[in-house]
Amino acid sequence: MSVAKSSSANELHLRMQVLGRDARAAADVLARASEQAKNTALRAAAAGLRSDKAAILAENEKDVAYAEQKPDITAAFLDRLRLDGARIDAMAAGLEAIADLPDPIGSVLAEWTRPNGLRIRRVRVPLGVIGVIFEARPNVTADAAGLCLKAGNPILLRPGSESFHSAAAILERLQHGLKLADLPEAAIQMVPTRDRAAVGEMLRMTDAIDVIVPRGGKSLIERVVQESQIPVFRHLEGICHVFVDRNADLDKARKIAVNAKMRRPGICGAMETLLIDAAVAEKFLPPILKDLAQAGCALRGDEKTRALYPKAEAATEADWTTEYSDAILSVRVVDGLDAAIAHINRYGSQHTDSIVTEDAAAAEKFMERVDSAIVMQNASTQFADGGEFGMGAEIGISTGRLHARGPVGVEQLTTYKYHVLGDGQVRP
Amino acid sequence: MSVAKSSSANELHLRMQVLGRDARAAADVLARASEQAKNTALRAAAAGLRSDKAAILAENEKDVAYAEQKPDITAAFLDRLRLDGARIDAMAAGLEAIADLPDPIGSVLAEWTRPNGLRIRRVRVPLGVIGVIFEARPNVTADAAGLCLKAGNPILLRPGSESFHSAAAILERLQHGLKLADLPEAAIQMVPTRDRAAVGEMLRMTDAIDVIVPRGGKSLIERVVQESQIPVFRHLEGICHVFVDRNADLDKARKIAVNAKMRRPGICGAMETLLIDAAVAEKFLPPILKDLAQAGCALRGDEKTRALYPKAEAATEADWTTEYSDAILSVRVVDGLDAAIAHINRYGSQHTDSIVTEDAAAAEKFMERVDSAIVMQNASTQFADGGEFGMGAEIGISTGRLHARGPVGVEQLTTYKYHVLGDGQVRP
Repeated sequence: MSVAKSSSANELHLRMQVLGRDARAAADVLARASEQAKNTALRAAAAGLRSDKAAILAENEKDVAYAEQKPDITAAFLDRLRLDGARIDAMAAGLEAIADLPDPIGSVLAEWTRPNGLRIRRVRVPLGVIGVIFEARPNVTADAAGLCLKAGNPILLRPGSESFHSAAAILERLQHGLKLADLPEAAIQMVPTRDRAAVGEMLRMTDAIDVIVPRGGKSLIERVVQESQIPVFRHLEGICHVFVDRNADLDKARKIAVNAKMRRPGICGAMETLLIDAAVAEKFLPPILKDLAQAGCALRGDEKTRALYPKAEAATEADWTTEYSDAILSVRVVDGLDAAIAHINRYGSQHTDSIVTEDAAAAEKFMERVDSAIVMQNASTQFADGGEFGMGAEIGISTGRLHARGPVGVEQLTTYKYHVLGDGQVRP
Repeated sequence: MSVAKSSSANELHLRMQVLGRDARAAADVLARASEQAKNTALRAAAAGLRSDKAAILAENEKDVAYAEQKPDITAAFLDRLRLDGARIDAMAAGLEAIADLPDPIGSVLAEWTRPNGLRIRRVRVPLGVIGVIFEARPNVTADAAGLCLKAGNPILLRPGSESFHSAAAILERLQHGLKLADLPEAAIQMVPTRDRAAVGEMLRMTDAIDVIVPRGGKSLIERVVQESQIPVFRHLEGICHVFVDRNADLDKARKIAVNAKMRRPGICGAMETLLIDAAVAEKFLPPILKDLAQAGCALRGDEKTRALYPKAEAATEADWTTEYSDAILSVRVVDGLDAAIAHINRYGSQHTDSIVTEDAAAAEKFMERVDSAIVMQNASTQFADGGEFGMGAEIGISTGRLHARGPVGVEQLTTYKYHVLGDGQVRP
C-alpha cells in the first residue's frame, strides 16, 4: 500500500511540475502578446461558452449529482455549484467586459531623469503565473482566467472536487479561444485530477507560481495561508461595519443600513455589525432596527440595544466576529466615534467599514483610523466591489496589505520593472 | 530534558508573542505620527549614535570576539561585522538622510468620481509591522529601522547571533530617539535572545508581522522563503549580466564592463557574467577582457571566449549561476540578441541586466524581454541601488515580483487604502 501511495504521490508531483513548467513557458509569450490577440481569445471563449451551453450543463449535472451524494452538502453549496443558461451567459458577458478594458501592460507608471543623465522609467508588466484554488462556483474558472489573461498572466486553476467537470468544460472553451488567437493553451490550465494532494503540491511550486489566489470559505483560505510557500492574495472574511454617528442623517442611516445588510446578505461586503452612537441611540436605533426587521433581518443586540429594542435577541461575544453571510445582524450601542473605531479595529476583518455622519471631521477621523482596505462615509458597504469601483471586474477583494489591497482587478494583477536608459554612465 | 526544552520553547513563544503584540499596538500610533515627530526621532537617534560611539564600539568588540572563536568564520564576515567610527557616522548620516525624505503617508495616489456620485480616493498608508532578519552587518539595525519608521511601520529586528550586542547597542539609541519624540519605543524592537528558534517563531507570527525582509546570504534567504507563513521581500541573488551587442560603442562597453564588475565586486548589482555578441567578439572581446584583467579581475570563459582570449580559465555550467561577489567574471560569446536574452532569462536572478548598444530597437527588445527588476541600456549594473534611483535609501533590492520589485525604499514600505465618500448612496 505504502509503495503504491508513494508512487502515485510521485506521479502527481511530476504532473504538477509539467503544468508549472508549461505555465512558466507561456508567461514569456503572454507577456508580449498583443492587446488584440488577448481580446480575440476572450471574445472567442465567450462565444464558445454561449454556443456550447448544452455540453457545459451536462458536465455540470455530473458535478451536481456527485455533490448531492455527499452527506454534508448544503443547499447553498449546491446553489453555488449549479449552472444554468443565464449563469453561462453571465460568464460570457464577463469575458467580453474584460476584453473591453484597457490593456494595462506596457504603460509607463513613472519616469524621471537623474542628475547624471540616466533616464528611469517604471513600466507595467504582468505579475507572473497565478494559481487559483477555488471551491464550488464554476464561474471562477472563466472570471479568473479572463482577468489573468488580460493582464498577461498564465493561470493554473484548481477547482474543488465538486466543480471538477464543470471547470473542465469551461476550460475547454477558454483554451479554444487561446488557440484561435494563436496564444499558448498553457496560458490557462487546470489541475487534471481531483486528488486533494494537488493543493499541497501547488502551494510548494515556488519556481512555477508567483501568487496564489484562494477563492472559497474560511477553512480553505486558512489552510492556504498556513501552508503556502508562495505569496497569497488572501481574503479571510468580510466582517463589515456601519457606524451611525451622533451627527448622522437618520434617513441616510436607515437606507444605508438596510441596503448594506439586506441587498445581498451573502456577499463579503455585506454589513455584519451595526454600531450606533449612544448619544443618538434612543432616537435612531428603533426606526433603523424596525426597517431591518421589516426587510426580514434577524437581530442580535447588546444590552443597550435590547433596552431600546427588546425584540432583538441577546448578542454574545462571538457575534462580533461572525460573518453570518445571511440575513442576521449584530447591533451594538457604542460611546461615540472612538469606541466605534476601537470596536472595528478589534473585531473587524480589515475589509470595508462605513460611517454615517454629516460631520466631515468625524468622517475624516474614522477613515484615517479604521485600518481597513475600504473606509466609507455615507455609503453602503455593498459598494465594496471592483465593478462598483470602476475597475471593470475583480478576482476578489484582498484583506491583506501587500501588493493588492481591496478589489483585485486587472491592474492589481500586474507588477512593474525599471527601464534605465543611459549613454555610457558608470557609477563613481 | 524534553520537558526542559519544551518549557524553554514555550517561554520563547510567549516572549515573541509579547513583542508582536507590542509592535501591533505601536502600529496604530505610528500610522498617525506627525512627520515632525518621526523626523525628530530619526535625528535624535543619529545624534545618539554619534555621541555614544565608544559604548557602541565596546559592544561591537564583544561580538567580534565571539565570532572569532567560531571555526568557520571568514575574514569577509568579520569585516561586515566590525564597526568603527566612520561606520557609525555613516549610520547616523543615513538616518538624517531618511529624515530629509518627504513623508509618504497620507498622500492621495489617485482620485476619481463614479457615475453615482461616489468619490473614491486611494490613499497611501503604512504597510504594517516589518520583520527584518539579518546576519552580520550591525548597520542594518539603523538603516532598516530608519526607513520603516519614516514609512510609519513598526519593525521587529532579529540580528544574527554574531551581531547581537552591536545591534542591541544601536537599538538603544534608536529607542532613545523615539522616546524624545514621544513615540512608542515598541516601534523599534529587537528579539532579545540569540536562540535560533526565534527565527522560526517570527516566521509564524502571521497576526503580528505583515512582511519579512531577510538580509543576508543565500542560505538565510532560502530558509526564510521556505519556512515563512508571512509574505517575504526576497532578494535571492544578484546574478547580473552585461550584454555587448553588435552595435555597441566599444568605448562605452569597456568602461561599463570594468565599472559593472570592479567598482565594488561584492555588491548585489555587480556584473557576474559578460555576454558578447559573436558578430563583434573578435574585435571587442580582447580589449574588454584586457581592461578587466588589468583591473584585477579573474576571467572564466566559454570555448569561444578562450579562443579569442586564451588567458581566461575554462568556465563550467556552474559559472553561469554563480554570484561570485568577488573579482571573478564569467564570459560567454552568444549568437546575437536573442541568445543573450535566452541566456539571461535562463541563468539570471531577475535582478539587473544591461545591454550596451547604439541600436534603439535592440535595446527596446532587450528591455522588454529580459524578465528582471531592472533592465538597462548603456549603463553600469552598479547603478542598481535605491540611492542612485533617487529614492533616498533602500532596505534592499527585491527580486520577487510582488508589491516591491527592485529597490525597496520608503514608498515601497507603504500600502494604500480606499476612502469612499458618499452622500447616502445605496447599491441598486
